[in-house]
Amino acid sequence: MSIFEERESAIRAYCRVYPVVFDKAANARQTDENGKEYIDFFAGAGVLNFGHNNQRMTKAVVDYIQSNGVTHSLDMHTTAKRQFMQHFTDTILKPRNMPHKMQFTGPTGTNAVEAAMKLARRVTGRQDVVAFSHGFHGMTLGALSATANQYFRNAAGVPLNHVKHFAFGCDKTCPGCDLGCGMNSIDQLTAIYQDSSSGIAPPAAFLLETIQAEGGVKVASKEWLQALEKLAKEVGALFIVDDIQVGVGRTGSFFSFDDLGIDPDIICLAKGIGGMGTPMAMNLVKPELDEHWSPGEHTGTFRGQDISFVAGDQALTYFDNDELMKEVKANGQQMAEALAPLAQRYPDVNVTGKGMILGLDVGNGDRAKAIVNQCFEAGLLIASCGTGGRVVKLIPPLTTPQSDLKTGLDILVEVTDRVMQMERAA
Amino acid sequence: MSIFEERESAIRAYCRVYPVVFDKAANARQTDENGKEYIDFFAGAGVLNFGHNNQRMTKAVVDYIQSNGVTHSLDMHTTAKRQFMQHFTDTILKPRNMPHKMQFTGPTGTNAVEAAMKLARRVTGRQDVVAFSHGFHGMTLGALSATANQYFRNAAGVPLNHVKHFAFGCDKTCPGCDLGCGMNSIDQLTAIYQDSSSGIAPPAAFLLETIQAEGGVKVASKEWLQALEKLAKEVGALFIVDDIQVGVGRTGSFFSFDDLGIDPDIICLAKGIGGMGTPMAMNLVKPELDEHWSPGEHTGTFRGQDISFVAGDQALTYFDNDELMKEVKANGQQMAEALAPLAQRYPDVNVTGKGMILGLDVGNGDRAKAIVNQCFEAGLLIASCGTGGRVVKLIPPLTTPQSDLKTGLDILVEVTDRVMQMERAA
Amino acid sequence: MSIFEERESAIRAYCRVYPVVFDKAANARQTDENGKEYIDFFAGAGVLNFGHNNQRMTKAVVDYIQSNGVTHSLDMHTTAKRQFMQHFTDTILKPRNMPHKMQFTGPTGTNAVEAAMKLARRVTGRQDVVAFSHGFHGMTLGALSATANQYFRNAAGVPLNHVKHFAFGCDKTCPGCDLGCGMNSIDQLTAIYQDSSSGIAPPAAFLLETIQAEGGVKVASKEWLQALEKLAKEVGALFIVDDIQVGVGRTGSFFSFDDLGIDPDIICLAKGIGGMGTPMAMNLVKPELDEHWSPGEHTGTFRGQDISFVAGDQALTYFDNDELMKEVKANGQQMAEALAPLAQRYPDVNVTGKGMILGLDVGNGDRAKAIVNQCFEAGLLIASCGTGGRVVKLIPPLTTPQSDLKTGLDILVEVTDRVMQMERAA
Amino acid sequence: MSIFEERESAIRAYCRVYPVVFDKAANARQTDENGKEYIDFFAGAGVLNFGHNNQRMTKAVVDYIQSNGVTHSLDMHTTAKRQFMQHFTDTILKPRNMPHKMQFTGPTGTNAVEAAMKLARRVTGRQDVVAFSHGFHGMTLGALSATANQYFRNAAGVPLNHVKHFAFGCDKTCPGCDLGCGMNSIDQLTAIYQDSSSGIAPPAAFLLETIQAEGGVKVASKEWLQALEKLAKEVGALFIVDDIQVGVGRTGSFFSFDDLGIDPDIICLAKGIGGMGTPMAMNLVKPELDEHWSPGEHTGTFRGQDISFVAGDQALTYFDNDELMKEVKANGQQMAEALAPLAQRYPDVNVTGKGMILGLDVGNGDRAKAIVNQCFEAGLLIASCGTGGRVVKLIPPLTTPQSDLKTGLDILVEVTDRVMQMERAA
Repeated sequence: MSIFEERESAIRAYCRVYPVVFDKAANARQTDENGKEYIDFFAGAGVLNFGHNNQRMTKAVVDYIQSNGVTHSLDMHTTAKRQFMQHFTDTILKPRNMPHKMQFTGPTGTNAVEAAMKLARRVTGRQDVVAFSHGFHGMTLGALSATANQYFRNAAGVPLNHVKHFAFGCDKTCPGCDLGCGMNSIDQLTAIYQDSSSGIAPPAAFLLETIQAEGGVKVASKEWLQALEKLAKEVGALFIVDDIQVGVGRTGSFFSFDDLGIDPDIICLAKGIGGMGTPMAMNLVKPELDEHWSPGEHTGTFRGQDISFVAGDQALTYFDNDELMKEVKANGQQMAEALAPLAQRYPDVNVTGKGMILGLDVGNGDRAKAIVNQCFEAGLLIASCGTGGRVVKLIPPLTTPQSDLKTGLDILVEVTDRVMQMERAA
Repeated sequence: MSIFEERESAIRAYCRVYPVVFDKAANARQTDENGKEYIDFFAGAGVLNFGHNNQRMTKAVVDYIQSNGVTHSLDMHTTAKRQFMQHFTDTILKPRNMPHKMQFTGPTGTNAVEAAMKLARRVTGRQDVVAFSHGFHGMTLGALSATANQYFRNAAGVPLNHVKHFAFGCDKTCPGCDLGCGMNSIDQLTAIYQDSSSGIAPPAAFLLETIQAEGGVKVASKEWLQALEKLAKEVGALFIVDDIQVGVGRTGSFFSFDDLGIDPDIICLAKGIGGMGTPMAMNLVKPELDEHWSPGEHTGTFRGQDISFVAGDQALTYFDNDELMKEVKANGQQMAEALAPLAQRYPDVNVTGKGMILGLDVGNGDRAKAIVNQCFEAGLLIASCGTGGRVVKLIPPLTTPQSDLKTGLDILVEVTDRVMQMERAA
Repeated sequence: MSIFEERESAIRAYCRVYPVVFDKAANARQTDENGKEYIDFFAGAGVLNFGHNNQRMTKAVVDYIQSNGVTHSLDMHTTAKRQFMQHFTDTILKPRNMPHKMQFTGPTGTNAVEAAMKLARRVTGRQDVVAFSHGFHGMTLGALSATANQYFRNAAGVPLNHVKHFAFGCDKTCPGCDLGCGMNSIDQLTAIYQDSSSGIAPPAAFLLETIQAEGGVKVASKEWLQALEKLAKEVGALFIVDDIQVGVGRTGSFFSFDDLGIDPDIICLAKGIGGMGTPMAMNLVKPELDEHWSPGEHTGTFRGQDISFVAGDQALTYFDNDELMKEVKANGQQMAEALAPLAQRYPDVNVTGKGMILGLDVGNGDRAKAIVNQCFEAGLLIASCGTGGRVVKLIPPLTTPQSDLKTGLDILVEVTDRVMQMERAA
Repeated sequence: MSIFEERESAIRAYCRVYPVVFDKAANARQTDENGKEYIDFFAGAGVLNFGHNNQRMTKAVVDYIQSNGVTHSLDMHTTAKRQFMQHFTDTILKPRNMPHKMQFTGPTGTNAVEAAMKLARRVTGRQDVVAFSHGFHGMTLGALSATANQYFRNAAGVPLNHVKHFAFGCDKTCPGCDLGCGMNSIDQLTAIYQDSSSGIAPPAAFLLETIQAEGGVKVASKEWLQALEKLAKEVGALFIVDDIQVGVGRTGSFFSFDDLGIDPDIICLAKGIGGMGTPMAMNLVKPELDEHWSPGEHTGTFRGQDISFVAGDQALTYFDNDELMKEVKANGQQMAEALAPLAQRYPDVNVTGKGMILGLDVGNGDRAKAIVNQCFEAGLLIASCGTGGRVVKLIPPLTTPQSDLKTGLDILVEVTDRVMQMERAA
């Protein structure tokens, strides 16, 4: 019996999907201890936007450590943090005229979301936050209240209050409606908040992902997002975008909403922002909101991770020019084109997404599981998401070489065809 | 205006206490960008038990990165994780006959506490957790409910339910009683839970630190802890020790409770366990409890930090023999002896603690603040804790060289004398 | 200064609308201490279905008291209670093949609703109850959670959890939709409960009024109610009808839903059931649900009001034959016809209702207030309801004599015309 | 099968203790339908302070009904209400210099308690209310949160938050301590509220009974009550006395606290205040607190019960002079003397109480049940209370004739002796 079977908690999950022991990794490939290589379309659940052991980053990090740079600094000032903050300000914030302050929380996405919810409640003096069906925001009790999936919610063991869920993303013509009910969710929300007898009081904030990644790669329409932001302003609520999985270049631009004409009050970042899987979480907060914080009100031991500042600073070099983002758009195009025939061949199959995050909805979880397993056998790491796990999610590193991208897509298409056709044959 | 003033959130705190920019760090010393060195009695809030840039760890980490080891693995298996788990099992668990499973949560202490609370509620089907006055368990909503300090609680913006607080640490003769009310808290708890009309139902768990570090270095008596564990068994509740700040060698033994004759159901670890400030959090859970988890019910992007496994593996080498722990005990003795005269000289001053965590309670927060500030001027990093920040806390790296330890203690004693005497003079 | 101004709480309300001191009352008339008579279209907020001091009841009650009948009996057996229960069983339950048990709660509607919610949660093991926008269910904390009006909710001072509100009454074509959003609320609810990632778990119960009286005389469609009942069964939730204001003959039949083809699991009754304003509240509960109660789990000092049993027994005589119910239907027709021209004359004016409860929606609260005040001056007691108080509600005693009914309607129509025309003139 | 068995809810309770059908009642006697008479030491759970069908009241009520007095008036003004309010002001409030306003809530004790809790939360802007172990305050969700008994609490089906329970009634020497833990609860509370890291924030109110009637006739000491009131003022919390069961003359004075030197901010009254079992509930509220109410924020259909005003007005005549209160004191003395020998004979037996409420604690619920049953057989109605039902509670009408009082006491003593001795013999 391995030490994993002997001593690791029953809660372990991905190791059941990929039952090998990984040893090495570089850019879009991982190698197991037997030397078998896998193309990685999973990227550590969307963390490794710049690939495993990105060479710009490994070099900088090794240099930093070898020169005795401060590695752990809480919220003290360090030269590494200064470098990261200056770079982020110059490359990301200033070109967008964003006045936002940077708040470093404990280095997990859930912690950033908790901080955002606290601040929204503080600023408005209200308690309820609105989140959306299929949204995923984390596992700690505050963020979990906003996460929609009942499997995760059931683990809480206590009622998850002070968050109300509504349908996600519907626009006037309802193509993206996840409820299939034909309603217009913005009109509904507007009606609810204009009516003092609706039973539902105005919220502290609307909290959402522009693309629900774990929720099944559901893409909100530009119109819906703009209308929601407008509604938030009208009812005096904050507009918070959780860009943890789809920010940092994933959609072909630094923020997932750069082309959507919205101006969030708070933006939650984590995953890719820390560079090479080195943990960081950061909220961008409008200054007039940020000033409601008192020093140290929301702390966290690991909120000053200088190795992550160093690696994250290297990640920002990918945004100093538009080369990588151009590639992401091209790659995204290529990925969509590769999958399109599947949607044509099988009525149950749908493809959604933007940039280098795509969802291949195969209709049910059993099929998706079969596809994931057979891809793994064929040397492709990929995972499923969405209700019942019915959506195969493609989130390769943004830096994936053309050859790996093509090979991975070929495997996926071939495996999907095989799974769909075996079912027909049966 | 610096980038920090321009762009960092108003919530920043420690940088206000130590208003410099740090650049380098090694073992018990940090150096600011102007080259001024500071002896570090704060150790990153108790994270850096083995010093800044511990050479065993920097070497192992650099080797790991340069060989393209997997750095980010969620809960997949990796060779680095296997090495850490095997080492931990052999060095820590087996010699103590501890059957506990290892659950890796998101790499913050608060996340480990949240997972422990979820599991306790799942196992017992109860909702309330008992925590204690002055306890500190984290900032996310579940853990924050257990944290006692009103300053942190007020930031929640929603009611913090499902946790009940009671007085900490009283034994039969009440010397450790933090309420000064002469009551015997275990008898009270027993009476409450035996009475179906007390208004208070039996809890899912008792959650506590054996030494409340942030709470003011309050040390629970062995008798009280044993009685509490007995009560937990009687009422069918779990007994959870949050050893995040005082575990991993801090008290002269790996666990803070190795000499206390208790057997916790769940032990929460973070901070020092990850090695050199590299983030990790881990719960040790008795197997019969752990099996209540379903796969992936409590997830977290950064729950597989292989750099932390590599550094943490090196940290475990300090427990392969008893050299360091002997030193910790000797150093602790030296520290206590250095401070004892202060307690004799000033009736308001008290010293508490165990091993290399000591609290110098100077009676009020203003004095403590003056001491912290003047120590900083004199080249010593130290911080305060406890209600109103009245306790100066000493948590130097366990590996602090004798000379640095002595110098630091000399500065602290001299500054404390000066502050106390200036007050008398005024 | 009167004793009322001197000593009555600032919370008093109706006495501000009708600033006189009432002295006598008989059937549909009240007389103030100066001898001025008022026709009563308010009937004690829908309590006095059989008029003030109904002669059948006053005689029976006086006889009962003078013969030393037990007046206060908690849930002991009394001959008066037996008589009431037998009469109710024979006249109401048996003809409808209703197997329901009778649970007498504390004699307020809110108490009956609280008991129903407790039982639904007990039976299902779930916590959330679904209630509807504009619903009114009472003022105690459990029932208040289901009441939609923010004015009442704000008085709670604590979060009102464990109830979710949805839009009321929409059918496929949405004519009754109170949100104006074009959605189909049953389809929405169905979608929500079929989706394990909607963020909303199946409820313990759906709690609703078939006609929202306080909510503005909103009438649910038969189709919507049947679909909701069907959904309740599908998701394993109870279907609870709060018939407190519109039951006991108000709509032309004993229950408001006798002609709607639904079969509620629990029916909450109060107001009219106690006869002459003598307090009683009673839940009708299906036997298989009722058996989940343990003795005395939901008590209340005044749950055995024998004067109310005696008066209520007399009230049941009105249902031993169909005379009164025929009159109610005819009167309702007459009332609707009297108001119809107002809706034709003024585009802002709408009339809703059924039987002898009608709502005259005049578009805003200021108009309604003016109408109520001028009616009072003209000798008609009437009150407003709905969001912002914009709906003038007609709930005269069912026993109102033809002449009083006509006079009252004439006053109302004339006053409404005057108010609407003065506004036009201005 | 009787209609009760056939149709009454399984929740019925007292009818199981007294399995007969009562028909008539006068003063301290009830008669069943077979003509058997019972002396009543239960008085409708403390409602019938002036006996069944008190002749002053029946006459006044019959006159009122026969003259077509208004019976149901919500919070409109009526002549009957004016008479009651003036009488109450003149007889009760003015002689005590009490400036309190009178708030009439829905006519159940639980409703009065809910209103008091709402107002306390409104005034202070705080959420938590402190209640006490063994306290009983009602069954609706807000009041139930304050009720200590787990049997009732378990019926809620949702968490009961925003109330914290502490030990009741301990004074410096702890004789009344119900927890047996030797602690001094006021010192504990003081310590908790002075410590910003206790985990427990200052409350909106302290809510308590001076004598816990349902809780087992536990009598708080004068010293404890005064210290608690002082603490309430210090921490900015309201001091609320629930005098529902032990007010209105029960202890030998109108309020239970007339001789205790306290000045409650809010006093909740119900039960006896309505006269002859006719329902009324009323809060007395200091004017500066009352003005925080807005009109109609806490309503209730039956908050204007004029029959209860008429009967209650008659009840007040018993306080126009001190005759009855003198008798109550004498009767209380006689009752205590009758029971004292039981406490001497049996070490398990204790007697507590004041005026005409006494508790005979017989050590366990089985004995108490046997005593209650055998008393019933012998013609005495009496009930048990306290944890596990171990306390036999004596609350006869204050107007009980000497002969009935003596006969009832004789039966109780004889039955208790028999039960205690049979146990010894066994």
